Amino acid sequence: MSGSKMSAEIHEQPEVLERILDEGWDEVLSASRVLRQGDLRSVMIAARGTSDNAALYAKYPFEVLLGVPTALASPSAFTFYESTMNLEGVLVVGISQSGESQDVLETIRRSGELGANTLTVTNDESSAMAKVGQHHFFLRAGKEESVAATKTYTAELMMLYLLACALKGEERLGHDVRRLPELSREVLEAEWEGTERYRYAEYMVVTSRGYNLATAEEAALKLMETTYVVAQAFSAADLRHGPIAMIGHDFPVLVIASPGRAQPGMRSLVDNLRDRGAELVVVSDESTMLDKASAKFPVPGSLPEELAPILCAIPIELLAENLARLKGLNPDSPRGLSKVTETW
Amino acid sequence: MSGSKMSAEIHEQPEVLERILDEGWDEVLSASRVLRQGDLRSVMIAARGTSDNAALYAKYPFEVLLGVPTALASPSAFTFYESTMNLEGVLVVGISQSGESQDVLETIRRSGELGANTLTVTNDESSAMAKVGQHHFFLRAGKEESVAATKTYTAELMMLYLLACALKGEERLGHDVRRLPELSREVLEAEWEGTERYRYAEYMVVTSRGYNLATAEEAALKLMETTYVVAQAFSAADLRHGPIAMIGHDFPVLVIASPGRAQPGMRSLVDNLRDRGAELVVVSDESTMLDKASAKFPVPGSLPEELAPILCAIPIELLAENLARLKGLNPDSPRGLSKVTETW
Repeated sequence: MSGSKMSAEIHEQPEVLERILDEGWDEVLSASRVLRQGDLRSVMIAARGTSDNAALYAKYPFEVLLGVPTALASPSAFTFYESTMNLEGVLVVGISQSGESQDVLETIRRSGELGANTLTVTNDESSAMAKVGQHHFFLRAGKEESVAATKTYTAELMMLYLLACALKGEERLGHDVRRLPELSREVLEAEWEGTERYRYAEYMVVTSRGYNLATAEEAALKLMETTYVVAQAFSAADLRHGPIAMIGHDFPVLVIASPGRAQPGMRSLVDNLRDRGAELVVVSDESTMLDKASAKFPVPGSLPEELAPILCAIPIELLAENLARLKGLNPDSPRGLSKVTETW
Repeated sequence: MSGSKMSAEIHEQPEVLERILDEGWDEVLSASRVLRQGDLRSVMIAARGTSDNAALYAKYPFEVLLGVPTALASPSAFTFYESTMNLEGVLVVGISQSGESQDVLETIRRSGELGANTLTVTNDESSAMAKVGQHHFFLRAGKEESVAATKTYTAELMMLYLLACALKGEERLGHDVRRLPELSREVLEAEWEGTERYRYAEYMVVTSRGYNLATAEEAALKLMETTYVVAQAFSAADLRHGPIAMIGHDFPVLVIASPGRAQPGMRSLVDNLRDRGAELVVVSDESTMLDKASAKFPVPGSLPEELAPILCAIPIELLAENLARLKGLNPDSPRGLSKVTETW
């Protein structure tokens, strides 16, 4: 383990997940009991940066497990264009680790006026966002000092997953979600290798599909923030639809391919990318895919697809932190960034 | 004008826009009269690639002008995960120039079974997608032979804008939308300069905000498909939230900043990027911003913000086509791409 705050916070994730299971579930249950009494026609989620990737993840459990159509909010529709859209029957969720993201705050405040039920998720109980909605979930991640969010990201994923379960009517924590603290410890202790050869990489494509699309987006964001690599995420379906044209010999591609419905397609994409001469970093449980990679991050294969993004986030955080140090950069202090985002 | 099909199709846009106004509006009006009789609680739009950027555009007129919350669909929720979400009161719109995009087709078919009203937008009246929904809008763009979509993109934007107007209850074409064929001719005839210095650019960031966020995404996609430049789009708000860390001296950034609520923020971002030493390509009506760029694409400043993306798409198509030729590539035949996307 290096001495960066980012590395320390990456390693705190098992205990944060455990704390949410122990202390956060009651909060989720009681908000959900209230919300289930009203009309729940759709969900809209407002967030920026890493929290927006948590929102992208949440779209899948909300649509697939809970069965409610879910949109990612365009904050500018509220902040610039003064939309008076009808939000009756809509649950609007705002996510921000600091709880001070101004346009997300304004989106939640205005959504309430437009008839929505509102809920916020933050890592600061005394923040403005903790008070603006009807309900608030506290992430309990402890102070996050590194500018690059890590432990608050996986905490957000778990909170949002639990919300989908509770809104569906589940009253008890499921068996699989309770395994996450232990499995995340295993991922942190797993051997990984091969990152040195990316020391001089200037750009990278990241790809996955379905539940793990959010992991791909988050990997790209972490790499951009901490290593200044131009990293870009694509749904594997969208990648094949056009951008694959730019991938030729030596082009570095990070593939996230954990078990589930998306995996067979990821397997064929890995072959396609290898045929084009791409250089692969693979996060997977499958040795056949790992064997085709020059940097390999194994993850456990025994979790349901909807929970895998919580584990798969860890290797991509380790990769970003490690690559930042390989490049001689301080992962804790990206140039030109501050922890709380001011959006004009 | 070069001899590429892409260039020829870029130059057909004024007549395509005119044809939609002359022949397409009645189709939009009559579908909207039917749809207005039912419950319209929210909209969900399914698309891939360029059409997905048209969907991103449409989210703004639907939410701001029409006042209906709008989501971009995750096709895998239907195709992989067999979501049984409740879609009563939801209008699900599928967009595909070919009308043969398999996962969009399946999303529309399944949405109908789940209670949605369905509408498709294609450039082929005999395609599978033209028949799968309750309503169909025909783009009338003429056959598009270049793999990189151009005229079908602006046709999609106009059709979706007209749909928002008609669903709102407008019975006549507005004054501003009727000016688009003529204004698009002006954009095609305008002098632009400075693209040569990007001959060896390997990556590029594209940024805008609000209505023109879709233009930024489409610019990035066109550049990736035709020039193999690793081009990545960000909302200006998201760019400031983290990825700006990677932008230093010489880094090429394409900025789209047409008039409206988003422009003051874009102006301050341009200054911020210049302070970091970035090299700017600017699409704008404002000479102060154009003067800070090394490649300049002027656009008219007299249109309402919601229609600007139809004009601003043209310079970015010209840029992609021109840069492909500067790099010695054939913009009509990107490696590894075909016109119809097969998604596994």
